[in-house]
Amino acid sequence: MKNYILQIEYFGENYNGWQRQTSFPSVQSEVEKALSKVANHKVEVVCAGRTDSGVHATSQIANFLSNADRSLMAWKRGLNAILPNDIKIINIQEVPNDFNSRFAAISRTYNYVIYNAQVSSPIFARHSLWENRALDIDKMNQAAKYLLGKQDFTSFRSSQCQANTPFRTIQKAEFTKHGSFIIFEVQGNAFLHHMIRNLVGSLVNIGLGQKPPEWIKELLDAKDRTIAAKTARPQGLYFVGVEYENFEYIRPMKDIFVG
Amino acid sequence: MKNYILQIEYFGENYNGWQRQTSFPSVQSEVEKALSKVANHKVEVVCAGRTDSGVHATSQIANFLSNADRSLMAWKRGLNAILPNDIKIINIQEVPNDFNSRFAAISRTYNYVIYNAQVSSPIFARHSLWENRALDIDKMNQAAKYLLGKQDFTSFRSSQCQANTPFRTIQKAEFTKHGSFIIFEVQGNAFLHHMIRNLVGSLVNIGLGQKPPEWIKELLDAKDRTIAAKTARPQGLYFVGVEYENFEYIRPMKDIFVG
Repeated sequence: MKNYILQIEYFGENYNGWQRQTSFPSVQSEVEKALSKVANHKVEVVCAGRTDSGVHATSQIANFLSNADRSLMAWKRGLNAILPNDIKIINIQEVPNDFNSRFAAISRTYNYVIYNAQVSSPIFARHSLWENRALDIDKMNQAAKYLLGKQDFTSFRSSQCQANTPFRTIQKAEFTKHGSFIIFEVQGNAFLHHMIRNLVGSLVNIGLGQKPPEWIKELLDAKDRTIAAKTARPQGLYFVGVEYENFEYIRPMKDIFVG
Repeated sequence: MKNYILQIEYFGENYNGWQRQTSFPSVQSEVEKALSKVANHKVEVVCAGRTDSGVHATSQIANFLSNADRSLMAWKRGLNAILPNDIKIINIQEVPNDFNSRFAAISRTYNYVIYNAQVSSPIFARHSLWENRALDIDKMNQAAKYLLGKQDFTSFRSSQCQANTPFRTIQKAEFTKHGSFIIFEVQGNAFLHHMIRNLVGSLVNIGLGQKPPEWIKELLDAKDRTIAAKTARPQGLYFVGVEYENFEYIRPMKDIFVG
């Protein structure tokens, strides 16, 4: 039996998120169908970050076990020939048998892409959140500093969140500007349900000057979801990678386009 | 009667090109429908570059006449409220009554976007041409130099081309790299039918090392469409703007994303 790690890019628009479900299309079921066909036996995958409905990934990480005798190139080509255009395997490697892509993950990184211009972009409408009013990225970065370290994120978790604890540790939370786009890069040990989209909703309010940067600290202290801003739309969110003990698979949006 | 110039962004996937047709969706008919509604009378538009089926625009330029009493902001808001998400008016200005966006154009600029990576990109598949083999951009730039100046482009015009002359003058033809993307920027007084996509097809062959850079000169000299490479797909092509006597509306792809 061999254990393989997959680096997967997908455009989430047509999927009800990563996780396999009986009656809705999911990224996991497409990947498992392709793997089972190439392996010639039923394959199940474990992933590092279960993305929500409509959320994209430049670098989702998953692993699976198989005893099929295939070269890495044969796996990659076989899988990509079967997978739809909106899901592709960027990379495959062999890993030790006890490696679990979910439990071994030290941190996850997400990018949230905002298109900040007076008129929405027909070309990038499905790739970003459009905000027509000018955002003050300095204020958003001041606010984002309050998120760093270990914090109780009760105010930013959805009512459906099933995590045991509201505590998460954030290593990075930063906005950068690229042309008309503003990219929020956030790295943490893990994230609660809807946590990043809820954070973006409140940070946008701060960028618009409706609230001061310190409002984020107030929200954290309040531990009350009802007082934070609304959840930002999923089409701006990208899962961009995972850090492990000895290697990392971080692939930010800007590395793909801006270079 | 007032004459207005429109700067239009569109994602071409769902349209049979710019030009109005009875039985297919076109960008022109969507724009004219919206204009007629806001103006409250029938409006026809003239454009600077009639794009083909599936081709996009970051800065299509068109003009129209109307005696409706509307502020520029009212036109823009009204039009964008009616237009679908894949067509938006970026800008509107008043111009002299004798201005014609097509005949006044000194030059047009297009970008062709190639995604050059081993695996196709689910996120940018509909925005670019995927080439999995490494492209040598230096060779492509050497080849592109042969296109400059006034030339007979018979080898690169489609059999349906209705232009009176195969001569066109090219001011700029250059490849630049941005992350995994290669952008071909080409500026000319005008272009023949399928000319840019036919050029890209042959330039890609040169980038792959299948032909030397001088091949472009051979093709130009031969004046024979049948010996050049095949037409590159439309989804990588963007109309990025127009230069006029006293102003220009060039908006390259890299300015939007890379900044």
